[in-house]
Amino acid sequence: MKLYDLELSGNCYKVRLFAALAKIPLEMVPVDFMGGEHKRPPLTNLNPWGELPILEDGKVVLRDSQAILVYLAAQYGDENWLPRDATGLGEVMQWLSTSANELQNGPCAARLADKFGYAIDKANTLERAARILPLIEAHLAAHQWLALGRPTIADCAVMPYVALAPEGGISLEAYPNIRQWIARIKALPGFIPMPGI
Amino acid sequence: MKLYDLELSGNCYKVRLFAALAKIPLEMVPVDFMGGEHKRPPLTNLNPWGELPILEDGKVVLRDSQAILVYLAAQYGDENWLPRDATGLGEVMQWLSTSANELQNGPCAARLADKFGYAIDKANTLERAARILPLIEAHLAAHQWLALGRPTIADCAVMPYVALAPEGGISLEAYPNIRQWIARIKALPGFIPMPGI
Repeated sequence: MKLYDLELSGNCYKVRLFAALAKIPLEMVPVDFMGGEHKRPPLTNLNPWGELPILEDGKVVLRDSQAILVYLAAQYGDENWLPRDATGLGEVMQWLSTSANELQNGPCAARLADKFGYAIDKANTLERAARILPLIEAHLAAHQWLALGRPTIADCAVMPYVALAPEGGISLEAYPNIRQWIARIKALPGFIPMPGI
Repeated sequence: MKLYDLELSGNCYKVRLFAALAKIPLEMVPVDFMGGEHKRPPLTNLNPWGELPILEDGKVVLRDSQAILVYLAAQYGDENWLPRDATGLGEVMQWLSTSANELQNGPCAARLADKFGYAIDKANTLERAARILPLIEAHLAAHQWLALGRPTIADCAVMPYVALAPEGGISLEAYPNIRQWIARIKALPGFIPMPGI
Protein backbone atom coordinates (compact mmCIF):
# COMPACT_ATOMS: atom_id res chain seq x y z
CA MET A 1 0.00 0.00 0.00
CA LYS A 2 1.58 3.25 -1.21
CA LEU A 3 1.24 6.78 0.08
CA TYR A 4 2.35 9.40 -2.44
CA ASP A 5 3.82 11.76 0.06
CA LEU A 6 5.39 15.15 0.74
CA GLU A 7 7.20 15.40 4.06
CA LEU A 8 6.34 19.07 4.65
CA SER A 9 2.64 18.64 3.88
CA GLY A 10 0.35 18.62 6.90
CA ASN A 11 -2.24 16.82 4.79
CA CYS A 12 0.22 14.00 4.11
CA TYR A 13 1.27 14.01 7.76
CA LYS A 14 -2.35 13.39 8.85
CA VAL A 15 -2.13 10.04 7.07
CA ARG A 16 1.41 9.19 8.18
CA LEU A 17 0.47 10.02 11.78
CA PHE A 18 -2.68 7.90 11.81
CA ALA A 19 -0.95 4.97 10.13
CA ALA A 20 1.81 5.13 12.75
CA LEU A 21 -0.63 5.32 15.67
CA ALA A 22 -2.78 2.48 14.31
CA LYS A 23 0.25 0.42 13.24
CA ILE A 24 -0.81 0.28 9.59
CA PRO A 25 2.17 -0.31 7.27
CA LEU A 26 2.50 2.26 4.47
CA GLU A 27 5.11 2.41 1.76
CA MET A 28 6.09 6.06 1.34
CA VAL A 29 6.58 7.32 -2.21
CA PRO A 30 8.19 10.77 -1.97
CA VAL A 31 6.88 13.11 -4.67
CA ASP A 32 8.93 15.89 -6.27
CA PHE A 33 6.45 18.60 -5.31
CA MET A 34 8.68 21.55 -6.24
CA GLY A 35 9.15 19.91 -9.65
CA GLY A 36 5.38 19.62 -10.06
CA GLU A 37 5.37 15.83 -10.27
CA HIS A 38 1.86 15.76 -8.73
CA LYS A 39 0.54 18.04 -11.51
CA ARG A 40 1.30 15.70 -14.42
CA PRO A 41 0.96 12.02 -15.42
CA PRO A 42 1.35 9.44 -14.08
CA LEU A 43 0.25 11.04 -10.77
CA THR A 44 -2.66 12.92 -12.33
CA ASN A 45 -3.89 9.56 -13.60
CA LEU A 46 -4.19 8.55 -9.94
CA ASN A 47 -5.50 11.94 -8.79
CA PRO A 48 -6.78 14.29 -11.51
CA TRP A 49 -6.93 17.02 -8.86
CA GLY A 50 -3.16 17.29 -8.84
CA GLU A 51 -2.91 17.17 -5.07
CA LEU A 52 -1.19 15.14 -2.36
CA PRO A 53 -1.56 12.83 -0.54
CA ILE A 54 -2.72 9.97 -2.75
CA LEU A 55 -3.27 6.48 -1.38
CA GLU A 56 -2.92 3.44 -3.64
CA ASP A 57 -3.95 0.12 -2.12
CA GLY A 58 -4.19 -2.41 -4.93
CA LYS A 59 -7.11 -1.27 -7.04
CA VAL A 60 -8.25 1.32 -4.48
CA VAL A 61 -6.96 4.82 -5.23
CA LEU A 62 -8.04 7.73 -3.05
CA ARG A 63 -7.40 11.47 -2.95
CA ASP A 64 -8.15 13.79 -0.01
CA SER A 65 -6.54 13.23 3.37
CA GLN A 66 -9.87 12.93 5.19
CA ALA A 67 -11.12 10.24 2.79
CA ILE A 68 -7.84 8.37 3.17
CA LEU A 69 -8.14 8.45 6.97
CA VAL A 70 -11.69 7.06 6.76
CA TYR A 71 -10.60 4.31 4.37
CA LEU A 72 -7.56 3.27 6.40
CA ALA A 73 -9.49 3.26 9.68
CA ALA A 74 -12.39 1.27 8.23
CA GLN A 75 -10.20 -1.20 6.36
CA TYR A 76 -7.24 -1.68 8.72
CA GLY A 77 -7.99 0.12 12.00
CA ASP A 78 -10.33 -0.82 14.79
CA GLU A 79 -13.56 0.88 15.83
CA ASN A 80 -11.73 2.94 18.43
CA TRP A 81 -10.37 5.11 15.63
CA LEU A 82 -13.54 5.29 13.56
CA PRO A 83 -16.79 3.93 14.98
CA ARG A 84 -19.34 2.25 12.72
CA ASP A 85 -22.47 3.47 14.52
CA ALA A 86 -24.30 6.50 13.17
CA THR A 87 -23.81 8.75 16.18
CA GLY A 88 -20.10 8.07 16.39
CA LEU A 89 -19.64 8.47 12.64
CA GLY A 90 -21.50 11.77 12.68
CA GLU A 91 -19.51 13.10 15.60
CA VAL A 92 -16.17 12.27 13.96
CA MET A 93 -17.38 13.54 10.59
CA GLN A 94 -18.02 17.03 11.97
CA TRP A 95 -14.30 17.36 12.60
CA LEU A 96 -13.30 15.97 9.21
CA SER A 97 -15.29 18.82 7.63
CA THR A 98 -13.57 21.29 9.96
CA SER A 99 -10.25 19.95 8.79
CA ALA A 100 -11.22 20.10 5.11
CA ASN A 101 -12.58 23.65 5.25
CA GLU A 102 -11.82 25.87 8.24
CA LEU A 103 -8.32 24.58 8.90
CA GLN A 104 -7.33 24.24 5.25
CA ASN A 105 -8.38 27.83 4.53
CA GLY A 106 -7.24 29.24 7.87
CA PRO A 107 -3.99 28.09 9.50
CA CYS A 108 -2.92 25.87 6.59
CA ALA A 109 -3.34 28.68 4.04
CA ALA A 110 -1.54 31.13 6.35
CA ARG A 111 1.42 28.72 6.45
CA LEU A 112 1.36 28.34 2.66
CA ALA A 113 1.64 32.12 2.38
CA ASP A 114 4.38 32.60 5.00
CA LYS A 115 6.49 29.47 4.58
CA PHE A 116 6.04 28.67 0.89
CA GLY A 117 5.29 32.08 -0.63
CA TYR A 118 1.87 31.22 -2.07
CA ALA A 119 -0.09 34.23 -3.36
CA ILE A 120 -2.83 34.00 -0.75
CA ASP A 121 -4.86 36.72 0.99
CA LYS A 122 -3.06 36.41 4.31
CA ALA A 123 -5.48 38.66 6.20
CA ASN A 124 -8.34 36.35 5.22
CA THR A 125 -6.47 33.30 6.51
CA LEU A 126 -5.85 35.08 9.83
CA GLU A 127 -9.53 36.02 10.14
CA ARG A 128 -10.52 32.42 9.56
CA ALA A 129 -7.95 31.17 12.07
CA ALA A 130 -9.15 33.71 14.62
CA ARG A 131 -12.63 32.27 14.30
CA ILE A 132 -11.87 28.56 14.34
CA LEU A 133 -9.12 28.33 16.97
CA PRO A 134 -11.27 29.76 19.80
CA LEU A 135 -14.05 27.31 18.86
CA ILE A 136 -11.62 24.40 19.10
CA GLU A 137 -10.16 25.83 22.32
CA ALA A 138 -13.62 26.04 23.90
CA HIS A 139 -14.42 22.49 22.84
CA LEU A 140 -11.16 21.22 24.33
CA ALA A 141 -11.84 23.06 27.59
CA ALA A 142 -14.55 20.46 28.17
CA HIS A 143 -13.12 17.47 26.27
CA GLN A 144 -9.82 15.62 26.33
CA TRP A 145 -10.22 14.56 22.68
CA LEU A 146 -12.22 16.04 19.82
CA ALA A 147 -14.77 13.22 19.57
CA LEU A 148 -16.11 10.30 21.55
CA GLY A 149 -13.87 10.85 24.59
CA ARG A 150 -10.94 9.03 23.00
CA PRO A 151 -8.37 9.49 20.24
CA THR A 152 -9.97 9.07 16.81
CA ILE A 153 -9.15 10.01 13.25
CA ALA A 154 -10.75 13.39 14.11
CA ASP A 155 -7.67 14.24 16.18
CA CYS A 156 -5.36 13.02 13.40
CA ALA A 157 -7.20 15.20 10.87
CA VAL A 158 -7.39 18.38 12.93
CA MET A 159 -4.17 18.47 14.92
CA PRO A 160 -1.56 18.92 12.14
CA TYR A 161 -2.61 22.33 10.81
CA VAL A 162 -3.48 23.55 14.31
CA ALA A 163 -0.03 22.58 15.56
CA LEU A 164 1.62 24.10 12.46
CA ALA A 165 -0.25 27.42 12.90
CA PRO A 166 2.86 29.22 14.25
CA GLU A 167 4.52 28.56 10.86
CA GLY A 168 1.79 30.79 9.43
CA GLY A 169 2.45 33.48 12.01
CA ILE A 170 -0.43 32.37 14.26
CA SER A 171 0.52 31.97 17.91
CA LEU A 172 -1.05 29.25 20.06
CA GLU A 173 -0.15 31.15 23.27
CA ALA A 174 -3.77 32.10 23.91
CA TYR A 175 -4.96 28.52 23.57
CA PRO A 176 -3.77 26.45 26.54
CA ASN A 177 -6.33 23.68 26.01
CA ILE A 178 -5.21 23.28 22.42
CA ARG A 179 -1.59 23.08 23.52
CA GLN A 180 -2.42 20.44 26.13
CA TRP A 181 -4.38 18.44 23.56
CA ILE A 182 -1.44 18.53 21.14
CA ALA A 183 0.78 17.30 23.99
CA ARG A 184 -1.68 14.44 24.66
CA ILE A 185 -1.50 13.41 21.00
CA LYS A 186 2.29 13.57 21.08
CA ALA A 187 2.24 11.21 24.07
CA LEU A 188 0.21 8.52 22.27
CA PRO A 189 2.06 5.23 21.64
CA GLY A 190 3.47 5.20 18.12
CA PHE A 191 3.33 8.99 17.63
CA ILE A 192 5.62 10.32 14.92
CA PRO A 193 6.56 13.98 14.40
CA MET A 194 6.96 16.07 11.27
CA PRO A 195 9.09 19.20 10.75
CA GLY A 196 7.39 21.96 12.77
CA ILE A 197 5.53 19.54 15.08
CA MET B 1 -36.11 14.72 14.80
CA LYS B 2 -35.61 18.43 14.17
CA LEU B 3 -33.69 20.21 11.45
CA TYR B 4 -32.94 23.84 12.28
CA ASP B 5 -33.32 25.14 8.79
CA LEU B 6 -33.02 28.08 6.43
CA GLU B 7 -34.88 27.66 3.16
CA LEU B 8 -32.35 29.61 1.06
CA SER B 9 -29.32 27.76 2.45
CA GLY B 10 -27.82 25.17 0.13
CA ASN B 11 -26.25 23.52 3.17
CA CYS B 12 -29.70 23.06 4.73
CA TYR B 13 -31.07 21.91 1.39
CA LYS B 14 -28.48 19.11 1.20
CA VAL B 15 -30.13 17.62 4.29
CA ARG B 16 -33.72 18.30 3.22
CA LEU B 17 -32.99 16.75 -0.18
CA PHE B 18 -31.41 13.59 1.19
CA ALA B 19 -34.16 13.13 3.78
CA ALA B 20 -36.76 13.46 1.02
CA LEU B 21 -35.00 10.99 -1.28
CA ALA B 22 -34.44 8.46 1.53
CA LYS B 23 -37.93 9.02 3.00
CA ILE B 24 -36.59 10.06 6.40
CA PRO B 25 -39.11 12.22 8.30
CA LEU B 26 -37.70 15.54 9.52
CA GLU B 27 -39.46 18.26 11.47
CA MET B 28 -38.35 21.59 10.00
CA VAL B 29 -37.63 24.39 12.46
CA PRO B 30 -37.25 27.60 10.44
CA VAL B 31 -34.56 29.86 11.89
CA ASP B 32 -34.65 33.67 11.72
CA PHE B 33 -31.29 33.91 9.97
CA MET B 34 -31.54 37.61 9.12
CA GLY B 35 -32.32 38.26 12.79
CA GLY B 36 -29.22 36.31 13.82
CA GLU B 37 -31.13 33.65 15.78
CA HIS B 38 -28.39 31.11 14.94
CA LYS B 39 -25.73 33.36 16.47
CA ARG B 40 -27.17 33.40 20.03
CA PRO B 41 -28.63 31.03 22.63
CA PRO B 42 -30.47 28.76 22.60
CA LEU B 43 -29.18 27.80 19.12
CA THR B 44 -25.53 28.39 20.00
CA ASN B 45 -26.03 25.91 22.85
CA LEU B 46 -26.81 23.35 20.15
CA ASN B 47 -24.12 24.60 17.75
CA PRO B 48 -21.46 26.89 19.23
CA TRP B 49 -20.28 27.58 15.68
CA GLY B 50 -23.37 29.69 15.02
CA GLU B 51 -24.16 27.99 11.72
CA LEU B 52 -27.02 26.15 10.07
CA PRO B 53 -28.14 23.45 9.59
CA ILE B 54 -28.31 21.80 13.00
CA LEU B 55 -29.83 18.36 13.49
CA GLU B 56 -31.37 17.39 16.83
CA ASP B 57 -32.39 13.77 17.17
CA GLY B 58 -33.10 13.10 20.83
CA LYS B 59 -29.75 13.42 22.57
CA VAL B 60 -27.83 13.52 19.27
CA VAL B 61 -27.01 17.06 18.14
CA LEU B 62 -24.91 17.60 15.03
CA ARG B 63 -23.55 20.58 13.13
CA ASP B 64 -22.14 20.51 9.58
CA SER B 65 -24.26 19.37 6.66
CA GLN B 66 -21.84 16.62 5.67
CA ALA B 67 -21.81 15.14 9.18
CA ILE B 68 -25.61 15.28 9.26
CA LEU B 69 -25.83 13.42 5.93
CA VAL B 70 -23.51 10.71 7.25
CA TYR B 71 -25.52 10.38 10.47
CA LEU B 72 -28.91 10.25 8.76
CA ALA B 73 -27.73 7.74 6.15
CA ALA B 74 -26.09 5.48 8.73
CA GLN B 75 -28.97 5.68 11.22
CA TYR B 76 -32.03 5.75 8.97
CA GLY B 77 -30.94 5.16 5.37
CA ASP B 78 -29.80 2.00 3.68
CA GLU B 79 -26.36 1.09 2.42
CA ASN B 80 -27.19 2.31 -1.05
CA TRP B 81 -26.85 5.88 0.21
CA LEU B 82 -23.78 5.34 2.36
CA PRO B 83 -21.91 2.03 2.19
CA ARG B 84 -20.31 0.57 5.29
CA ASP B 85 -17.28 -1.00 3.58
CA ALA B 86 -13.99 0.87 3.63
CA THR B 87 -13.66 1.37 -0.12
CA GLY B 88 -17.19 2.70 -0.49
CA LEU B 89 -16.86 4.93 2.55
CA GLY B 90 -13.60 6.34 1.23
CA GLU B 91 -15.01 6.99 -2.21
CA VAL B 92 -18.04 8.86 -0.84
CA MET B 93 -15.90 10.71 1.69
CA GLN B 94 -13.76 12.26 -1.06
CA TRP B 95 -16.83 14.14 -2.26
CA LEU B 96 -17.92 15.20 1.21
CA SER B 97 -14.57 16.96 1.55
CA THR B 98 -15.07 18.57 -1.87
CA SER B 99 -18.40 19.83 -0.68
CA ALA B 100 -17.01 21.15 2.61
CA ASN B 101 -14.05 22.97 1.03
CA GLU B 102 -13.97 23.56 -2.72
CA LEU B 103 -17.70 24.12 -3.19
CA GLN B 104 -18.20 26.08 0.04
CA ASN B 105 -15.36 28.46 -0.84
CA GLY B 106 -16.08 28.53 -4.58
CA PRO B 107 -19.64 28.60 -5.93
CA CYS B 108 -21.29 28.89 -2.51
CA ALA B 109 -19.15 31.88 -1.51
CA ALA B 110 -19.73 33.51 -4.92
CA ARG B 111 -23.49 33.23 -4.29
CA LEU B 112 -23.13 34.69 -0.79
CA ALA B 113 -21.38 37.69 -2.35
CA ASP B 114 -23.80 38.22 -5.22
CA LYS B 115 -27.14 37.25 -3.70
CA PHE B 116 -26.67 38.14 -0.05
CA GLY B 117 -24.08 40.92 -0.17
CA TYR B 118 -21.42 39.21 1.94
CA ALA B 119 -18.03 40.98 1.93
CA ILE B 120 -16.19 38.21 0.14
CA ASP B 121 -13.31 38.33 -2.35
CA LYS B 122 -15.46 37.49 -5.37
CA ALA B 123 -12.50 36.99 -7.73
CA ASN B 124 -11.13 34.33 -5.42
CA THR B 125 -14.45 32.48 -5.38
CA LEU B 126 -14.52 32.55 -9.19
CA GLU B 127 -10.97 31.20 -9.39
CA ARG B 128 -11.89 28.37 -7.09
CA ALA B 129 -15.06 27.61 -9.06
CA ALA B 130 -13.10 27.66 -12.32
CA ARG B 131 -10.82 24.98 -10.87
CA ILE B 132 -13.39 22.67 -9.29
CA LEU B 133 -16.19 22.69 -11.88
CA PRO B 134 -14.03 21.31 -14.71
CA LEU B 135 -12.80 18.55 -12.38
CA ILE B 136 -16.39 17.58 -11.57
CA GLU B 137 -17.34 17.87 -15.26
CA ALA B 138 -14.51 15.54 -16.27
CA HIS B 139 -15.50 13.03 -13.60
CA LEU B 140 -19.12 13.09 -14.75
CA ALA B 141 -18.06 12.58 -18.37
CA ALA B 142 -17.16 9.04 -17.31
CA HIS B 143 -19.64 8.48 -14.46
CA GLN B 144 -23.40 8.81 -14.10
CA TRP B 145 -23.09 9.52 -10.37
CA LEU B 146 -20.25 10.90 -8.26
CA ALA B 147 -19.50 7.68 -6.40
CA LEU B 148 -20.14 3.94 -6.60
CA GLY B 149 -22.16 4.10 -9.82
CA ARG B 150 -25.37 5.00 -8.01
CA PRO B 151 -26.94 7.94 -6.14
CA THR B 152 -25.31 8.40 -2.73
CA ILE B 153 -25.04 11.14 -0.15
CA ALA B 154 -22.07 12.36 -2.24
CA ASP B 155 -24.53 13.60 -4.87
CA CYS B 156 -26.73 15.19 -2.19
CA ALA B 157 -23.71 16.99 -0.72
CA VAL B 158 -22.20 18.23 -3.98
CA MET B 159 -25.17 19.04 -6.20
CA PRO B 160 -26.75 21.99 -4.34
CA TYR B 161 -23.94 24.54 -4.61
CA VAL B 162 -23.06 23.36 -8.11
CA ALA B 163 -26.65 23.84 -9.25
CA LEU B 164 -26.84 27.22 -7.46
CA ALA B 165 -23.62 28.45 -9.13
CA PRO B 166 -25.53 30.72 -11.55
CA GLU B 167 -26.80 32.68 -8.51
CA GLY B 168 -23.15 33.55 -7.92
CA GLY B 169 -22.66 34.64 -11.51
CA ILE B 170 -21.12 31.33 -12.57
CA SER B 171 -22.60 29.82 -15.71
CA LEU B 172 -22.98 26.07 -16.13
CA GLU B 173 -23.21 26.41 -19.94
CA ALA B 174 -19.74 24.96 -20.45
CA TYR B 175 -20.53 21.91 -18.31
CA PRO B 176 -23.01 19.66 -20.12
CA ASN B 177 -22.18 16.59 -18.04
CA ILE B 178 -22.83 18.51 -14.86
CA ARG B 179 -26.17 19.72 -16.23
CA GLN B 180 -27.17 16.17 -17.18
CA TRP B 181 -26.18 14.91 -13.73
CA ILE B 182 -28.30 17.61 -12.06
CA ALA B 183 -31.19 16.53 -14.29
CA ARG B 184 -30.68 12.89 -13.23
CA ILE B 185 -30.85 13.92 -9.57
CA LYS B 186 -34.00 15.94 -10.24
CA ALA B 187 -35.57 12.82 -11.74
CA LEU B 188 -34.98 10.67 -8.64
CA PRO B 189 -38.15 9.53 -6.84
CA GLY B 190 -38.87 11.87 -3.93
CA PHE B 191 -36.75 14.75 -5.24
CA ILE B 192 -37.64 18.15 -3.78
CA PRO B 193 -36.48 21.52 -5.15
CA MET B 194 -35.33 24.71 -3.43
CA PRO B 195 -35.45 28.29 -4.72
CA GLY B 196 -32.88 28.47 -7.53
CA ILE B 197 -32.86 24.72 -8.18
